[in-house]
Amino acid sequence: MTNVAVVLSGCGHLDGAEIRESVLTLLYLDQRGAEVQCFAPDVPQKHVVNHLTGEEAVEQRNVLAEAARIARGNIKPLSEAKADDFDALIIPGGFGVAKNLSDLAFTGPKATVLPEFKALIEAFLEQKKPIGAICIAPAVLTAAVGQICKPLVTIGEDKATADAIQALGGTHQSAPSDACVSDEKNRIVTCSAYMRNDRLASIAKGIERVVEKVLNMAQAARKAA
Amino acid sequence: MTNVAVVLSGCGHLDGAEIRESVLTLLYLDQRGAEVQCFAPDVPQKHVVNHLTGEEAVEQRNVLAEAARIARGNIKPLSEAKADDFDALIIPGGFGVAKNLSDLAFTGPKATVLPEFKALIEAFLEQKKPIGAICIAPAVLTAAVGQICKPLVTIGEDKATADAIQALGGTHQSAPSDACVSDEKNRIVTCSAYMRNDRLASIAKGIERVVEKVLNMAQAARKAA
Repeated sequence: MTNVAVVLSGCGHLDGAEIRESVLTLLYLDQRGAEVQCFAPDVPQKHVVNHLTGEEAVEQRNVLAEAARIARGNIKPLSEAKADDFDALIIPGGFGVAKNLSDLAFTGPKATVLPEFKALIEAFLEQKKPIGAICIAPAVLTAAVGQICKPLVTIGEDKATADAIQALGGTHQSAPSDACVSDEKNRIVTCSAYMRNDRLASIAKGIERVVEKVLNMAQAARKAA
Repeated sequence: MTNVAVVLSGCGHLDGAEIRESVLTLLYLDQRGAEVQCFAPDVPQKHVVNHLTGEEAVEQRNVLAEAARIARGNIKPLSEAKADDFDALIIPGGFGVAKNLSDLAFTGPKATVLPEFKALIEAFLEQKKPIGAICIAPAVLTAAVGQICKPLVTIGEDKATADAIQALGGTHQSAPSDACVSDEKNRIVTCSAYMRNDRLASIAKGIERVVEKVLNMAQAARKAA
């Protein structure tokens, strides 16, 4: 049995986790028999965006409570996530990753990462357990580990974000939405997903490839251990 | 090209559309090349439920604006949906269907359906265009058409809901979550999804079968026309 931690950042691509990327991550993990535990930080959202108008709304929501909508209530505070308990970590995208799990959306190449999230990522890296990151999450992952290693990642082809990744200590590789990029040395697997405005079927294929590769890496790591 | 209307009822299974069922409906439609337009009623949610605690929250949300999170903003008011413009209709589940699109959650076998939603369903039925309904949606669909025809549907095996379907004028057939039930006469295809607490992979298979069957029926209807 492969145990995978999935970190969500709310519920909705403009202020939280990208819903489709999150659901498809859970689907492809379940189809391959992995056991999944979702986590999200128990903090206020940076802001709330009306997804019909794209405008900021005057209200407050909690990242953990909103992420619980995707997780159907089966979710724990991010502070309880321990790398020891899992074989792999996957981070779906959405602006929530760049707004609630880090400040990347506001600071770009000077991004910092929520301390409990940074510590979790570092622990997976240290224990040589694979990490999958989707959409904008590869940039935040780079912000978390760029001082330790030089991860090879993709966020598709968005130049500003690719430049930020380079500035944060990573290497960016362009890729289509149905592909994933694997950093075999650091056990990091990434895809662009909704960083490209492609059809859902193509985005789903990229996410499926990330999940498949992460599970293969996790299995190889366990055999080697 | 097959054009499919998908009606959402919010964002979150306790007070809106079931997120996973909605995303998987969109995925399987897109993988088969269908063109999709999402709709939701521009009305206040019946209530808001904290999905972490299961308790009602003291706040207000709009069904259309919340459904826009799943639709990534590409969604129209339900009042603009016309059966003339589409080949098929699919209704994912979640309590939102029973709370925002109807009052089934509160009135059971005496359920009534939001007038604009009832009119849309009747128009699809009249034009002999197929309708797919997932999870609790088959019960609401029965409430909408039970005076016109006697639909054959499944919501899995929940006795209270199956009894309500019979009282509303339908016929309930038990089915596992990875199967769909087809009413060939009325062109209605249903599956239980999260009316059963099964693994996501099995629920996904049932939804995929609904989508596949609805698209086949739509193609056959167009050939016959």
